[in-house]
Amino acid sequence: MNDTFLRACRGEKTDYTPIWMMRQAGRYLPEYQKVRGNVTFLELCKSPELCVEVTLQPIDLLNMDAAILFSDILILMEAMGAPLDFHEGKGPVFATTVRDQASLDKLIIPDPDEATGFVMETIKLLKKELKVPLIGFAGAPFTCATYLIEGGSSKVFWETKKLMFTQPELFHGLMEKITEATILYLQAQARAGAQALQLFDSWAGILAPCDYEEFAYPYVRKILASLKQYDVPLIYFANNGATLLEYSAESGADVVGLDWRINIKDAIARVGNKAVQGNIDPFALLLPEDKLKNRIQRLLDDAKDARGHIFNLGHGIHQFTPPAQAKLAVDLVHELSSK
Amino acid sequence: MNDTFLRACRGEKTDYTPIWMMRQAGRYLPEYQKVRGNVTFLELCKSPELCVEVTLQPIDLLNMDAAILFSDILILMEAMGAPLDFHEGKGPVFATTVRDQASLDKLIIPDPDEATGFVMETIKLLKKELKVPLIGFAGAPFTCATYLIEGGSSKVFWETKKLMFTQPELFHGLMEKITEATILYLQAQARAGAQALQLFDSWAGILAPCDYEEFAYPYVRKILASLKQYDVPLIYFANNGATLLEYSAESGADVVGLDWRINIKDAIARVGNKAVQGNIDPFALLLPEDKLKNRIQRLLDDAKDARGHIFNLGHGIHQFTPPAQAKLAVDLVHELSSK
Repeated sequence: MNDTFLRACRGEKTDYTPIWMMRQAGRYLPEYQKVRGNVTFLELCKSPELCVEVTLQPIDLLNMDAAILFSDILILMEAMGAPLDFHEGKGPVFATTVRDQASLDKLIIPDPDEATGFVMETIKLLKKELKVPLIGFAGAPFTCATYLIEGGSSKVFWETKKLMFTQPELFHGLMEKITEATILYLQAQARAGAQALQLFDSWAGILAPCDYEEFAYPYVRKILASLKQYDVPLIYFANNGATLLEYSAESGADVVGLDWRINIKDAIARVGNKAVQGNIDPFALLLPEDKLKNRIQRLLDDAKDARGHIFNLGHGIHQFTPPAQAKLAVDLVHELSSK
Repeated sequence: MNDTFLRACRGEKTDYTPIWMMRQAGRYLPEYQKVRGNVTFLELCKSPELCVEVTLQPIDLLNMDAAILFSDILILMEAMGAPLDFHEGKGPVFATTVRDQASLDKLIIPDPDEATGFVMETIKLLKKELKVPLIGFAGAPFTCATYLIEGGSSKVFWETKKLMFTQPELFHGLMEKITEATILYLQAQARAGAQALQLFDSWAGILAPCDYEEFAYPYVRKILASLKQYDVPLIYFANNGATLLEYSAESGADVVGLDWRINIKDAIARVGNKAVQGNIDPFALLLPEDKLKNRIQRLLDDAKDARGHIFNLGHGIHQFTPPAQAKLAVDLVHELSSK
């Protein structure tokens, strides 16, 4: 068992800097495309055997130091009763939106082992196969709420903020319900065998710090606090969250995820005694080898004072990234950090 | 002449905090919609009489302390030879893209008084009417380049970064050409009578700081340096640029524009002896009066140590904002800052 990733999360000494990439089981891999070609995205998410197959691909092909459960943050929203579909090129679409008390009341708090049993089954199957640690995950409540309120992806999140600013009680009610469901969901993942848990707050960065503090942060803290008992490293990733870093550091997470917009050295100075995960621009994987090597070396140097550093991209790997470039980055991180 | 805005830009004492709003002449105003109903967006931009009419609307209706020339940052790109159109609901679209040397070579450096004479004419006409200062503007080169490279708006800017990372000489060549055209364009605006100039870097925030420093910042500095001779306040707004603030402060701008993601007090501590402009979340204009008042009061308090503060939104006003709420915000800023 390669436990380098877990040791880095805990701030323990490692022989080299571990690396994994957000969305590492994804469309940039022809092997993934092949599996995905026969099923819809949702069918894939609900088939433990196929999830196991695609989760393992980047470990076997690219030598990543951690695996992340193949799933989607909105799977839990569907289990809560929101009718979800994925349209090619358009992303997730909900048939209904949650913008009033009646639609909020219709959402349920599902039993994770029943409603999302396929996720727990995937975790159990993966644990038999993997030689690296398995990361479970969920969306952070604010991020999940935006999809329910907007009915899918959004550019400016008008409906989300309208609800937040004009019906704060309703907004908090929605956040509480998602939080409760997320706690049960992540606890079940830990019980099923996930060895680390990441909370993805993809849209936290659309909030002013004062609004984040009031409308999003308390729920992040509540979830992370509920997971302490499982003694697995907790990672919180607030995307585009450079101005929210002090919150992330105090959230209860062991590891603070960083997007690419901040110099990792500045981030480390601000998060204090926390491990960090990140943060090369995913598109910088297109750099020619010499420049990619320089950039990775600089990032490793800048991160040397971190309590722990897990190398990652600052966002999910882009579908047009050549797999060979991803492999090159993994090899360079391993090689340069072993010196 | 109400010169409160100009005095705040220069860090001089003012009787109250001046306010204007990005995109204040825009779709949220029924009076704007009426003018726009008869012409396309591009026709409007090219009609000095209509531009004057819509530029004056928020001054007359909402009592703003500064006017901003009604135009679009891509007008200059069109004058450089890129065929521009605006599609309803889809934003700007260029019929061709600039991704190779041949298409770069086709771009010209236009004489601003000829190719964009309608802009200079609008400025001259406005100067006869206005009782508040007039702000001229252009897009920053990186932001303009993204539109030319992508062929319009983009979600992830894959083509832009691909060009930047794989063909840096070509990318810099494009930046140099846009920079040269922008210098002439803004100098012409100053000669025509613009009393302040703002450089909009709407997409600077997609860059890692190291890439911003290499690919975008030198051109911002070059443009701002070329405008010093006109002795008008220079404003630089790097949207989503919380991690770029130290660059903004050293860019040569007199005023640093701030989006809503950063606490203005933190920003002021980082930009030092510069005036700041911003930074309430545009959607916070939806707050009920008591909460809006509290938020504005807090922002004014947080900004009290700034060398100068121009109140503004952290981004353009949203089209669904009730004009009465915008008016309320203007009145509150005037009232609360006069105490």
